[in-house]
Amino acid sequence: MAWAQFTEGRGATALGRDREVAPRSLDRWLASLVQQQVAPAGVGVKLWDGALVPGSPSRTLGDLVVHDRRTLLGLATNPDLCFGQAYTAGGLDVRGPFEPVLEALSRLSAPEPTWRTRLMTAIASPTTLGDARRHVHEHYDLGNDFYAGWLDANMFYTCAYFAQPDQTLEAAQAGKADRVCRKLHLQETDHVVDAGCGWGGFALHAARHVGCRVTAFNVSREQLEFARARARRDGLDHLVSFVDDDYRNITGPCDAFVSLGMLEHVGRRQFDDLARVLARAVRRHGGRGLLHFIGRDVPCPLNAWLRRRIFPGAYAPTLGEVTSDVLAPAGMSVADVENLRLHCARTLAHWSERYEASVGAVRTERGNQFARAWSLYLAGSQAAFASGWLQLYQVVFSPRESDPPWWTRDDALVTPERPA
Amino acid sequence: MAWAQFTEGRGATALGRDREVAPRSLDRWLASLVQQQVAPAGVGVKLWDGALVPGSPSRTLGDLVVHDRRTLLGLATNPDLCFGQAYTAGGLDVRGPFEPVLEALSRLSAPEPTWRTRLMTAIASPTTLGDARRHVHEHYDLGNDFYAGWLDANMFYTCAYFAQPDQTLEAAQAGKADRVCRKLHLQETDHVVDAGCGWGGFALHAARHVGCRVTAFNVSREQLEFARARARRDGLDHLVSFVDDDYRNITGPCDAFVSLGMLEHVGRRQFDDLARVLARAVRRHGGRGLLHFIGRDVPCPLNAWLRRRIFPGAYAPTLGEVTSDVLAPAGMSVADVENLRLHCARTLAHWSERYEASVGAVRTERGNQFARAWSLYLAGSQAAFASGWLQLYQVVFSPRESDPPWWTRDDALVTPERPA
Repeated sequence: MAWAQFTEGRGATALGRDREVAPRSLDRWLASLVQQQVAPAGVGVKLWDGALVPGSPSRTLGDLVVHDRRTLLGLATNPDLCFGQAYTAGGLDVRGPFEPVLEALSRLSAPEPTWRTRLMTAIASPTTLGDARRHVHEHYDLGNDFYAGWLDANMFYTCAYFAQPDQTLEAAQAGKADRVCRKLHLQETDHVVDAGCGWGGFALHAARHVGCRVTAFNVSREQLEFARARARRDGLDHLVSFVDDDYRNITGPCDAFVSLGMLEHVGRRQFDDLARVLARAVRRHGGRGLLHFIGRDVPCPLNAWLRRRIFPGAYAPTLGEVTSDVLAPAGMSVADVENLRLHCARTLAHWSERYEASVGAVRTERGNQFARAWSLYLAGSQAAFASGWLQLYQVVFSPRESDPPWWTRDDALVTPERPA
Repeated sequence: MAWAQFTEGRGATALGRDREVAPRSLDRWLASLVQQQVAPAGVGVKLWDGALVPGSPSRTLGDLVVHDRRTLLGLATNPDLCFGQAYTAGGLDVRGPFEPVLEALSRLSAPEPTWRTRLMTAIASPTTLGDARRHVHEHYDLGNDFYAGWLDANMFYTCAYFAQPDQTLEAAQAGKADRVCRKLHLQETDHVVDAGCGWGGFALHAARHVGCRVTAFNVSREQLEFARARARRDGLDHLVSFVDDDYRNITGPCDAFVSLGMLEHVGRRQFDDLARVLARAVRRHGGRGLLHFIGRDVPCPLNAWLRRRIFPGAYAPTLGEVTSDVLAPAGMSVADVENLRLHCARTLAHWSERYEASVGAVRTERGNQFARAWSLYLAGSQAAFASGWLQLYQVVFSPRESDPPWWTRDDALVTPERPA
């Protein structure tokens, strides 16, 4: 498999010097603590001398190989943060099938927050407009070429909808965009606001297939440049406007409000802001909206490494937090919720496979640590969705004064109004 | 229309003596307060002298006719409770189309709780097993004949699913039961628990059409007798057991947990109990469940009169309360949510029409106050669902360790697995 190149024979790193030193009894004790934690997942632990730590399952699904003492200490005391940091830095390897081992480890974890995560949630500070722009810049302005290496041709960077599990990623992303249009019953006469539009995949799809007007907001300069160029190339710039602005400055009015994969970046302390935006932007009569977001069953911060290294400021909310703290204060009623977590795992499997196929170029251009971090992020996210640790919700809503967008949702989804 | 017989020419009641007395200036001042409240709904107010109160809209949708001073004082100070009490007692009439006037009044109300409703929520006491049995007895043991007068032949007393708006009630109730079976992907080999099974409509439908085993719980003796007789008559008693017990005593294990219209009666303080039942009763691997309940956008007690006169102990929760306080503590993930509030309004319209067609017999047997209370309850509930004041949620869930019951919900709902 594509990740095997990481799981065997990497060169020693700066932290790897403990390989020269035989593990001591303190090391063996720490290792036995880690082994106790991961054994129920069928995962073994090996130290830098290559020996399996006592207490490992007789037939393991895979092994964690700890290359140095600092990593061992980190895994024993703060695995949430250390696993990602050490894997990125090369202090930790996974021997065996990468995603299945991560999924087995993910299933182990209690979904309830620990005291550490509670504390971190409590002291989280509000996201200012400047923070938001910086956070987006850090993740999304890595270069369009980087993302083009593993996303589909239309650069959708959100969960796809696989009508059949073996669909191509391209078909499933078009299927997702089409499904969102249908759930919102979009019409040619509608004005749509797309909050956090990425590379413009959905906005362009809606303009092309429905013929509606779309005003799409984003604060990533690189994404906006790409999206505007696509709109011109495809002759859709008379329908779609890409606006360089924060969602908090959206005034509306609009017939439909769409946000795919932005809510995770909003942060819980800004839910009031988003509620105010919805309340003023969505037409009270005939308006409707859809939020598509990564969620949780139980309130809990994202994995510490992910939050620090990959998604600064991100928070995956529960369905209850979104309905109670965003939609209800905005005067919105929930019409429909669909959980697509297995579709998200499959989307990530496609991305992971494409990414690993070209990881050599990433390593050459951006270094080994960057390449390993993104390997872990993609495979670890796949594992989290597959194990039920993360959920993917699409929530359709409409103002309380309005009726839902359809009499039954089946009418919207099943009737072939237009080719997908 | 059927309710016209109530809105004109009723005889004077015990409270009606103020009709003989001309309204005084204090009466006129109170009436102007009430008129201010209801004018935005296009509703006028008339006092017992037959004169329209100043400030009423020039063309009203309908009028509230206040027959006595006590009613006037109640409407001015505690309309939530007084409207129902006074209408039932005959101190208040609605002149004009009954349900549309109630719907217009319903749209007026802020969905947020007032200080009065907050206080009542705070001091609500827990429901004991004895309370629960008494509450159910008060509402459901009014005699099967009474309910048979206006429910469908299979005695479904929950929201139907109208695939097309003009379906018959019978077809829509069968459609609902079929939809629930499909959402849960019920199979012949499944053991289903039905918590709060009413007259057994769903349990018998599932046994008949899927061939699965069903254990159905209820604490209403009259409903259970009816359901058992039906099971014997239809030769389904080898598949369905009707158990006279509280949902809190359900132990499982089961493959699918279904509850249609029970959660409203559980009460918020018992959500922990229900979470424990789900956690122990639903199989962790391959198990799934569905809760069908009347809900709200914002936490708020039911209308005071409804809670006192019709549904003692009832509470319609928000989607957030159910996901956060029932499903998450039970270790369940939400797979799907459908809001069927307009289907519930239509169901109530059918019930109301049938009820009013035979209300003469109800009045003869149970008295005028009983007959009027049920007229108001049915029409008022229809208005509340039509206006978005109440919601009707179907929530499909599965244990976090399990996958959802289907790859896409469309597979379950659209593929014609069996005739409806």
